[in-house]
Amino acid sequence: MFLADLLTTVFERRYLSKGADKADDRPLEALVADLIGATGEVSGQNLARQILSRYGALNDEEKRAFFRHLAEGLAVSAPAVRSALEHYEKGQSKASYREFMEAVEPPRQELIRRLNQVPDATRLLVGMREDLLRLSKGDDVLQALDLDFRHLFASWFNRGFLVLRPINWESPAQLLEKIIAYEAVHAIDSWSDLRRRLEPVDRRCFAFLHPAMPDEPLIFVEVALTKGIPGSIQGLLAENRTQIEADTADTAVFYSISNCQAGLAGISFGNSLIKQVAADLSLELPKLKTFVTLSPIPGLVRWLDGEGIDHGSADEDTLRKLAARYLMTAKRKDGLPLDPVARFHLGNGALVHQVHAGADLSDKGMKQSAGVMVNYLYDLEKVTQNHERFASIRTIAASSEIKSLSTAGENAFTLELSALN
Amino acid sequence: MFLADLLTTVFERRYLSKGADKADDRPLEALVADLIGATGEVSGQNLARQILSRYGALNDEEKRAFFRHLAEGLAVSAPAVRSALEHYEKGQSKASYREFMEAVEPPRQELIRRLNQVPDATRLLVGMREDLLRLSKGDDVLQALDLDFRHLFASWFNRGFLVLRPINWESPAQLLEKIIAYEAVHAIDSWSDLRRRLEPVDRRCFAFLHPAMPDEPLIFVEVALTKGIPGSIQGLLAENRTQIEADTADTAVFYSISNCQAGLAGISFGNSLIKQVAADLSLELPKLKTFVTLSPIPGLVRWLDGEGIDHGSADEDTLRKLAARYLMTAKRKDGLPLDPVARFHLGNGALVHQVHAGADLSDKGMKQSAGVMVNYLYDLEKVTQNHERFASIRTIAASSEIKSLSTAGENAFTLELSALN
Amino acid sequence: MFLADLLTTVFERRYLSKGADKADDRPLEALVADLIGATGEVSGQNLARQILSRYGALNDEEKRAFFRHLAEGLAVSAPAVRSALEHYEKGQSKASYREFMEAVEPPRQELIRRLNQVPDATRLLVGMREDLLRLSKGDDVLQALDLDFRHLFASWFNRGFLVLRPINWESPAQLLEKIIAYEAVHAIDSWSDLRRRLEPVDRRCFAFLHPAMPDEPLIFVEVALTKGIPGSIQGLLAENRTQIEADTADTAVFYSISNCQAGLAGISFGNSLIKQVAADLSLELPKLKTFVTLSPIPGLVRWLDGEGIDHGSADEDTLRKLAARYLMTAKRKDGLPLDPVARFHLGNGALVHQVHAGADLSDKGMKQSAGVMVNYLYDLEKVTQNHERFASIRTIAASSEIKSLSTAGENAFTLELSALN
Amino acid sequence: MFLADLLTTVFERRYLSKGADKADDRPLEALVADLIGATGEVSGQNLARQILSRYGALNDEEKRAFFRHLAEGLAVSAPAVRSALEHYEKGQSKASYREFMEAVEPPRQELIRRLNQVPDATRLLVGMREDLLRLSKGDDVLQALDLDFRHLFASWFNRGFLVLRPINWESPAQLLEKIIAYEAVHAIDSWSDLRRRLEPVDRRCFAFLHPAMPDEPLIFVEVALTKGIPGSIQGLLAENRTQIEADTADTAVFYSISNCQAGLAGISFGNSLIKQVAADLSLELPKLKTFVTLSPIPGLVRWLDGEGIDHGSADEDTLRKLAARYLMTAKRKDGLPLDPVARFHLGNGALVHQVHAGADLSDKGMKQSAGVMVNYLYDLEKVTQNHERFASIRTIAASSEIKSLSTAGENAFTLELSALN
Repeated sequence: MFLADLLTTVFERRYLSKGADKADDRPLEALVADLIGATGEVSGQNLARQILSRYGALNDEEKRAFFRHLAEGLAVSAPAVRSALEHYEKGQSKASYREFMEAVEPPRQELIRRLNQVPDATRLLVGMREDLLRLSKGDDVLQALDLDFRHLFASWFNRGFLVLRPINWESPAQLLEKIIAYEAVHAIDSWSDLRRRLEPVDRRCFAFLHPAMPDEPLIFVEVALTKGIPGSIQGLLAENRTQIEADTADTAVFYSISNCQAGLAGISFGNSLIKQVAADLSLELPKLKTFVTLSPIPGLVRWLDGEGIDHGSADEDTLRKLAARYLMTAKRKDGLPLDPVARFHLGNGALVHQVHAGADLSDKGMKQSAGVMVNYLYDLEKVTQNHERFASIRTIAASSEIKSLSTAGENAFTLELSALN
Repeated sequence: MFLADLLTTVFERRYLSKGADKADDRPLEALVADLIGATGEVSGQNLARQILSRYGALNDEEKRAFFRHLAEGLAVSAPAVRSALEHYEKGQSKASYREFMEAVEPPRQELIRRLNQVPDATRLLVGMREDLLRLSKGDDVLQALDLDFRHLFASWFNRGFLVLRPINWESPAQLLEKIIAYEAVHAIDSWSDLRRRLEPVDRRCFAFLHPAMPDEPLIFVEVALTKGIPGSIQGLLAENRTQIEADTADTAVFYSISNCQAGLAGISFGNSLIKQVAADLSLELPKLKTFVTLSPIPGLVRWLDGEGIDHGSADEDTLRKLAARYLMTAKRKDGLPLDPVARFHLGNGALVHQVHAGADLSDKGMKQSAGVMVNYLYDLEKVTQNHERFASIRTIAASSEIKSLSTAGENAFTLELSALN
Repeated sequence: MFLADLLTTVFERRYLSKGADKADDRPLEALVADLIGATGEVSGQNLARQILSRYGALNDEEKRAFFRHLAEGLAVSAPAVRSALEHYEKGQSKASYREFMEAVEPPRQELIRRLNQVPDATRLLVGMREDLLRLSKGDDVLQALDLDFRHLFASWFNRGFLVLRPINWESPAQLLEKIIAYEAVHAIDSWSDLRRRLEPVDRRCFAFLHPAMPDEPLIFVEVALTKGIPGSIQGLLAENRTQIEADTADTAVFYSISNCQAGLAGISFGNSLIKQVAADLSLELPKLKTFVTLSPIPGLVRWLDGEGIDHGSADEDTLRKLAARYLMTAKRKDGLPLDPVARFHLGNGALVHQVHAGADLSDKGMKQSAGVMVNYLYDLEKVTQNHERFASIRTIAASSEIKSLSTAGENAFTLELSALN
Repeated sequence: MFLADLLTTVFERRYLSKGADKADDRPLEALVADLIGATGEVSGQNLARQILSRYGALNDEEKRAFFRHLAEGLAVSAPAVRSALEHYEKGQSKASYREFMEAVEPPRQELIRRLNQVPDATRLLVGMREDLLRLSKGDDVLQALDLDFRHLFASWFNRGFLVLRPINWESPAQLLEKIIAYEAVHAIDSWSDLRRRLEPVDRRCFAFLHPAMPDEPLIFVEVALTKGIPGSIQGLLAENRTQIEADTADTAVFYSISNCQAGLAGISFGNSLIKQVAADLSLELPKLKTFVTLSPIPGLVRWLDGEGIDHGSADEDTLRKLAARYLMTAKRKDGLPLDPVARFHLGNGALVHQVHAGADLSDKGMKQSAGVMVNYLYDLEKVTQNHERFASIRTIAASSEIKSLSTAGENAFTLELSALN
């Protein structure tokens, strides 16, 4: 890696800078126009490099103007589409379809593809979209532009191009510092903390990477190997906990899943992560029989509050019932669960397995979910069936215990409400 | 690699086959419909695997039917496009643009992306397009379908995703046998022959690879390090030639460039190959000053014949003049050179440097070009300028020697013609 | 690898050649004396490089003289040893032991260690010993010198420094051509033949490598995955055989084990190879239950002839009995089995499991063992116990079938002998 | 790496533990005797594993007893040596030399080699010697035992087996934490501090590694790329310093060299490190012309104090003169420089180039050398010659400036002394 990079770098300095690569001080829009019109890779790469470099130096206002230029100046031409559509309707030939395809794709999509010709461009373009998402709030025109980025990224970050890699204490520091930065569920506060999550024989971590940006994890999951299903995140992560031999574990607990790239929002690739990790672990550790999460319930308190339920003094038993009720019955308008984490795991084919009170005593955990956490269970032989029922008829798969708790929760619920009256 | 593959394989056998992955004997069209309609990756991967597997077992007639189904059954809906276009024209909002984007993309594009979710799918889809190109001859409907493959592949095989790798005697046998199979210019007839092109210290080979099909070269170039510019391919490849120390060479000769994937026809990625290889070699061997090809002139004889010139008895001097004249003046209707190899190198920014008679005495060489070969010169500091002039105003860059020869060739030409009369 | 090599090479050319590294035309003995006396690595590396280079250009007569110089000129000094021994006996201090150690080690050992300071030296020194073994036949003085090489190599090629690697169709061509060259049991006659042994899913190959000579296998084993124990090598290797899925195999057959380095003769590292390969395969393919060899019996015919048994017309049943008898009872003076292959596998803890007549119909197979082959069985839970009994009290572990055959063989034997009388 | 380790681990658990590998509760001495007497690798590996594991659990008293057993119970037998020597003197045959070699090598050397058969043994044996060096202080018998370890390690860690690797922010965290721990010259106090030394484009680090303990650096050097020769370590390492582009640097400064393995004390492999790093950097950065250290002068103050020179109030100019004088003239009894760092660099062929006052204002720097530091210059074309003169006739190579300063220092010295009288 080191030497390959070196060669590339040295070359670029030595040759590219000599000739056409010298800074072009025309307006960025002119460079963009040139790149779209460029007839070959030779000049295209120089232009792409310059545009990306110039973009990197823009302030937010200038970025907004740049995006607006793409959105308005490089949009599809409705008359051209109309004309192409008419030709296509008259006769569906290769020629008419080609005209149609060319008309319906806005030039900015070709621009983004051409920008991607140079080293490191993919990472920079993901960063560009991160800017766009931030700057397009409330701006319908820029939000439309984002659809083009999203369309291309869905193609580029297609599941077939992603690579699953174990992340451990042997991984490059460069990658590990990203894990520290991106952990979104239970913050990692130092390299020592990171080490406690990666190095012990009963801990694992896996990430999806894309070959064009190999130092940037896209999504990662942290796993604890345990005997039995744990009911407390603080217990699971305690510094003084007792380690076990990995091959004596019967359970793999997915206790944290973090998306890393704001610029890839809406591009789905996490769905198969847990399933694939579970598979790899099964092979390595044949005694593993249970694959569960230990997940937050981020919407619980808000929902309880919205329902007018005073949970502040609820005992643990009541909290579990209320949580089960929430997970099983609280829905959005489209019929999907209200809780975003539940939507993710149920959508993957997991089932709601257990709920634990007093499971997350952190400030965030108490505030969001009154300390309650949930295990979603991945039964590898049932995930497809669960997924399909969930996707088609919104059935929430759950253990019989959760179902009982939820029913009991209805009573607790009624009780609470009646107590209020 | 070996173990990673193993893990994946074992898992798929162990888990996936248990449940939903069992063979689905519904018609292929039904599986395709399901995959397009699938709501998540979980069932999507199973379907993709089955469709690719089923496709692999089809005969040509069945493949043609499969393609026809994609072409006709999964095309864009003109009324939907028209309706979306009208909404978009009324107000260019995110919502109207999303409707437009969804309407103008035929479902078969999403199908191809979803097929690409499983391991090895990229290679299989490139193979599928190879079938399509073969089976669509004279079939305008299938040729239109090819535009969708081409559109997606242009995105997937974007230059930014390709990796340049040296190919040498330390490379995997699996990759090397592909080099033997794909060499298109000067055939490699055995492993010993291959070894003579890869192992000597004055020989090099480089290929572009794509991370999703790492065992399949996309394009490769073979290089000889020499003192001075060679004028004979048989001399360059002679078994008993004298090797030189690489660091005493002043010239790198690109004597063979081969595209490998018929299924990637029309997807451009070769243009930057020579330039990048020249750069890497420059760094390694600072004494290298000259980067040239030793190229066939495949259209020479046909053109001479077409012009009614009897070259059978021409002496070497005359042949060189005629070749220079051909390269400098023979054009297609669009003003580009008639010779395809000339188009490629001039389009990359090279210039016509020298021509050699008696340079390729093979049957093919004698038949195509009366034994004449040409050196195109890559001057790294001028490729951009050459390229741009060629692309914009069709200027063919050439050495003064070639220009003189070409002018002299005009006389030779006139002479020949007058001799005929 | 490629770039690292490049860096080293370029550096050596650029710097080392400038100064002290220029060819030193003093006698080789003078360079040797200098290297032994050199006070540091700086000049030592230059000397080492020159000596190795000069050695490489010697003819056999000169090599013999070089070895004789090492043997006689750089031997231990008996008076110095005697003096050191006396000091040591008087008082076993650090100082006296240091004097003793210095006295008893001949300077040529330090010479060999110092030669090993430069890149690729290990491989060259192994080659040097190969020369020595060849040239020392019948020369007791040179054979004594070999003990020093052997002593150092036993340290350098200590089992703890070796690396087990799978060899497959993805391995470097450079390594694969060595496999072709070194196969000693059943010759590989082309790259296609090699491919048939490496690429099918039911074939494997593993080698021990040393990090200092990574392109040179030290020993390798070829494995066939089968259902049931095969009884014919030609059947096992037949071009038109039916492949099976690896995960349906119940048996791994070690059908060829080849030592690669003549210069490492007598350095043991093969003993753990089969055991370790069996372990790796077990993990990958849990259905594998049986680990056997399909081995030649190279001494059978010679023994039968020696015993005066006319086996030419023996039927298959009789041949099996005679083979079993040979393997179970034919011994050397030291009580170990007469058959070298039997000694190797029994020494590793295997047991004699089955014998097959008509199992190797090649010329070599018919000539050496009348076509009979044997399976040695590696029962991973019993190898230690088998090994220890064999090593301590010469017990040959065998299946009950073999024991019966051997007893029957005694009769056959008597019968044959009586038939002769 | 990860999967390979996994395979090994799983295997060892699965198979080795079943049979002979169960804990053997006989005295450690009995296991040692068994291992020396073991007839093959099969049982030897089990014994080696157990001995190393048992050793790891010993306390210091028990370790001392274990070492005493090796030192006294597994020593050479003087009578056997005497007898072998007599045979050898009578006739220098292979047989008599073999007897001699066997007699003069104590069984504990074979023991150490056999312990090295199992994974990770090399690292454990290096740790064992670290214990031995610590526990053998003042114990002549144990110190003699150390000679055996040292003898074997000199063979195992022969320069030809070491690998030079760049250490950077892409290196495994596991390796980087060792760099933090082992930095012996200018302490690294956090991961952020480490990052400042590795990640900037004008900083480099290189280490020698051994393939059998790939996570353990043996020695490493930290390098700063600068314009001109720096005269202050605090300036060089300042957080707010200005970075430069690597390819604009003309000087590489080796500002810290740390040995990492106490258990490899006395095994030389650092001598070629700087020379080789200088070579690699030269290739990468052709503008680099000067290779210097920025080194402490650890013995300066002690020497000044010993000489009775009151340096407390000396001005910077005087300090430089005194330092030059110290480096050029202060010698040990054997004629080598008194200063250990000077011995190292001069022994490598460097010359004393410049001295700087106020160059190390840390507590340690002020206390050891009154803040003075020195640049040793590596002139790649002169290192061999410098080295040889230094090694043979103790000539200290120095710049003319240093020579002048040293002469002036003599006066300063006399002055100081006269001032005292």
